Amino acid sequence: MSSALYTSPVLGAWCQASGEDWTTYTNHGFVKGLGDGSLPTACFHHYMIQDYIFLVHFTRAWALAVVKSETLEEMKIAATMVDTLVNVEMQLHVETCRKIGITENQLFSAEETFENLAYTRFVMDSGLAGDFLDMMAALAPCVFGYGVIGRTIGPSAAADTPYQEWIDVYASEEYQGLCHGLGSMVEKAARARLGSKPADNPRWATLCKRFRTATRLEIDFWQMALRGH
Amino acid sequence: MSSALYTSPVLGAWCQASGEDWTTYTNHGFVKGLGDGSLPTACFHHYMIQDYIFLVHFTRAWALAVVKSETLEEMKIAATMVDTLVNVEMQLHVETCRKIGITENQLFSAEETFENLAYTRFVMDSGLAGDFLDMMAALAPCVFGYGVIGRTIGPSAAADTPYQEWIDVYASEEYQGLCHGLGSMVEKAARARLGSKPADNPRWATLCKRFRTATRLEIDFWQMALRGH
Amino acid sequence: MSSALYTSPVLGAWCQASGEDWTTYTNHGFVKGLGDGSLPTACFHHYMIQDYIFLVHFTRAWALAVVKSETLEEMKIAATMVDTLVNVEMQLHVETCRKIGITENQLFSAEETFENLAYTRFVMDSGLAGDFLDMMAALAPCVFGYGVIGRTIGPSAAADTPYQEWIDVYASEEYQGLCHGLGSMVEKAARARLGSKPADNPRWATLCKRFRTATRLEIDFWQMALRGH
Amino acid sequence: MSSALYTSPVLGAWCQASGEDWTTYTNHGFVKGLGDGSLPTACFHHYMIQDYIFLVHFTRAWALAVVKSETLEEMKIAATMVDTLVNVEMQLHVETCRKIGITENQLFSAEETFENLAYTRFVMDSGLAGDFLDMMAALAPCVFGYGVIGRTIGPSAAADTPYQEWIDVYASEEYQGLCHGLGSMVEKAARARLGSKPADNPRWATLCKRFRTATRLEIDFWQMALRGH
Repeated sequence: MSSALYTSPVLGAWCQASGEDWTTYTNHGFVKGLGDGSLPTACFHHYMIQDYIFLVHFTRAWALAVVKSETLEEMKIAATMVDTLVNVEMQLHVETCRKIGITENQLFSAEETFENLAYTRFVMDSGLAGDFLDMMAALAPCVFGYGVIGRTIGPSAAADTPYQEWIDVYASEEYQGLCHGLGSMVEKAARARLGSKPADNPRWATLCKRFRTATRLEIDFWQMALRGH
Repeated sequence: MSSALYTSPVLGAWCQASGEDWTTYTNHGFVKGLGDGSLPTACFHHYMIQDYIFLVHFTRAWALAVVKSETLEEMKIAATMVDTLVNVEMQLHVETCRKIGITENQLFSAEETFENLAYTRFVMDSGLAGDFLDMMAALAPCVFGYGVIGRTIGPSAAADTPYQEWIDVYASEEYQGLCHGLGSMVEKAARARLGSKPADNPRWATLCKRFRTATRLEIDFWQMALRGH
Repeated sequence: MSSALYTSPVLGAWCQASGEDWTTYTNHGFVKGLGDGSLPTACFHHYMIQDYIFLVHFTRAWALAVVKSETLEEMKIAATMVDTLVNVEMQLHVETCRKIGITENQLFSAEETFENLAYTRFVMDSGLAGDFLDMMAALAPCVFGYGVIGRTIGPSAAADTPYQEWIDVYASEEYQGLCHGLGSMVEKAARARLGSKPADNPRWATLCKRFRTATRLEIDFWQMALRGH
Repeated sequence: MSSALYTSPVLGAWCQASGEDWTTYTNHGFVKGLGDGSLPTACFHHYMIQDYIFLVHFTRAWALAVVKSETLEEMKIAATMVDTLVNVEMQLHVETCRKIGITENQLFSAEETFENLAYTRFVMDSGLAGDFLDMMAALAPCVFGYGVIGRTIGPSAAADTPYQEWIDVYASEEYQGLCHGLGSMVEKAARARLGSKPADNPRWATLCKRFRTATRLEIDFWQMALRGH
């Protein structure tokens, strides 16, 4: 199996199986624009508004993971994610957006783009269709991809990028620590369902596909953000 | 692994893992009363009314299995079960009940006993919490238990039992054939998720427990029916 | 309230509230191309393959409607839709596709476009998030839009259009009758949840939005089909 | 409409519609035994173990409510409940149980009684079948019933009852405040779906029935606890 991602060999293997899609997502033009500061303000604003709507549905997705958890640890971690998303992540967005004149209720009722809708509803349906691990495969590209992006552009960002605050969130020890904790949980969740050789289990291909589809939907999300409307 | 049930070694192993609960269920006093004709009429009527409500939720459960199917074959078989339950099984109940003066709408709105509620909601939640195979483990005791009961009391039933019609349904080649077809599908569904040695997969204990819990809920259902109210 | 669609004033009002989106969907260039025969073969083939995948998830959606039905009538109609989709609609597609050299298993495993994914997962999540009526609002544009398209282009289609077989399916008395039956059911389902003046219920705006979003996703589906890949 | 419960006329009306079941639940022998200290220790221990399992599924139920929330306020309140249940309520249970020699993992894997299973799975299925308000009707008897019990036996409990700690939790200003906050949210949720005269909406009878069934399942839960095994 390929090298681990955030201590999880399963996550590492899912990334590798996603081939160039994983690279395209984590090295996207939008990401580079955040790092070197060349991203147009309008694109960032558009992204922030859509990402807020994304967080609403991402919270729902982690809540569905609570519903589908099979161990106390899975339940506690997913419940903490729900709380963190609503009370930390969404609040961060609300505050950033307030500075540029957008209220929380406007955010909640903003028009959702179809790239956004496609991604989040795919994640929800992965949970309805499959089990806890199917959800993890669909949720992983967002959580861990942002971690990879944060630790990559964090050290190399231009001194004058106006997006330093955003970068700091995902480059932070706190977020990186969250990724390590979640990576460990995903690894255990995979082994508890697939056995000690996860890639030999017949479900493996389906899980890789879920991860890759979510990764591609992340690419579409960046594209939508770059489009600026 | 233990001997197969309806050609499925997995089903056979689940039965064996349920120990005496499986025997208690398939050899229950209610079943014996059907075979030798000693079952009080009131108990049978009570059973028929509750079983109708059961079928409503059992239909919902197979519909949830359609939602959760991952292959074309799983989807087609589950969809056929939905159709069969609504348009054949439920109709049989409606006709039998009409003879004793109970209308279909009365059946649909009859007061559900808690044994009935417990069983069907457990099956639904098995689907919401887990994947297609978790649902199969929760659905199997009803489908295949009635098959075992039918083929057991079919040949040995008293000539004058008033319950011959009921016995004939489950002893019929049609129902026994349905069990063989479903057994084959369950076996494939298990191997597609657990690998070639299903009992070695870490999910095995949880699946055995789901099957056993559903088996115990079947015993409770018979007890409720015998109670007569 | 606006004029009824398939005897349902609620459906009529939902269409009207969707404004030009409903017109754009039902009078789309793809539809015109089917009628006058100008649609490129490659676009039709692409549509047929994607529509097959759509039907898989549309079946899952109607199965979720069975899970969420609250009356016997709702359950029977939704169950019949599940069966019809799997055993009639999907078979029709399989046969048509077989003629052009595509097998059923290839269809089942074809790469799903994101327009397709977005639409079907939105419908599934409408069911998970809401009740039976929320599902109906999300399912309605497909069912009744195809009915409107069939009865519109049926009488006016060019004599030499190669898509006569497709047109005949939706222009047929059988499909039009299905729409009337479903329209009546949707109307009852709406009144049973919203009261005798559906448009005065506070849920009305949300239901109109679900219907309109699904309508827009239909437009995207036609666009994807026209794109031909 | 009857007098409000925790500022919510809808909750008050649901209680009244539950008739003597509501009274039987909130004045149950188990409750009296907590207040006057006559409850056998074994019954309390049995209750505590089963209540822990109940909390696991109650957390899953509130997580499903997050999935089904339609406003930001509904989402935030339900998410806070998930977090409170996992990180406060369950911890309280774990600590109390640890004092009597039961570990958290033992609690998580204790054998669930069928009364417990029936209640929680009914709540989960209410969410799967219906919308956010259907869930609230199924969740309300537990949340608000414990509030009523707390404020009733709090002031009248025997000075030497060994269950003072339990009583204090539910009689506390904190828990009573939680009930007021949730009562306000339920009232809004009802009006947002049923209109300004909730009892005139055709869904009213179904919602009353969900509330009453959950109330009866609470009575069964007390009975199970009194049985002591």
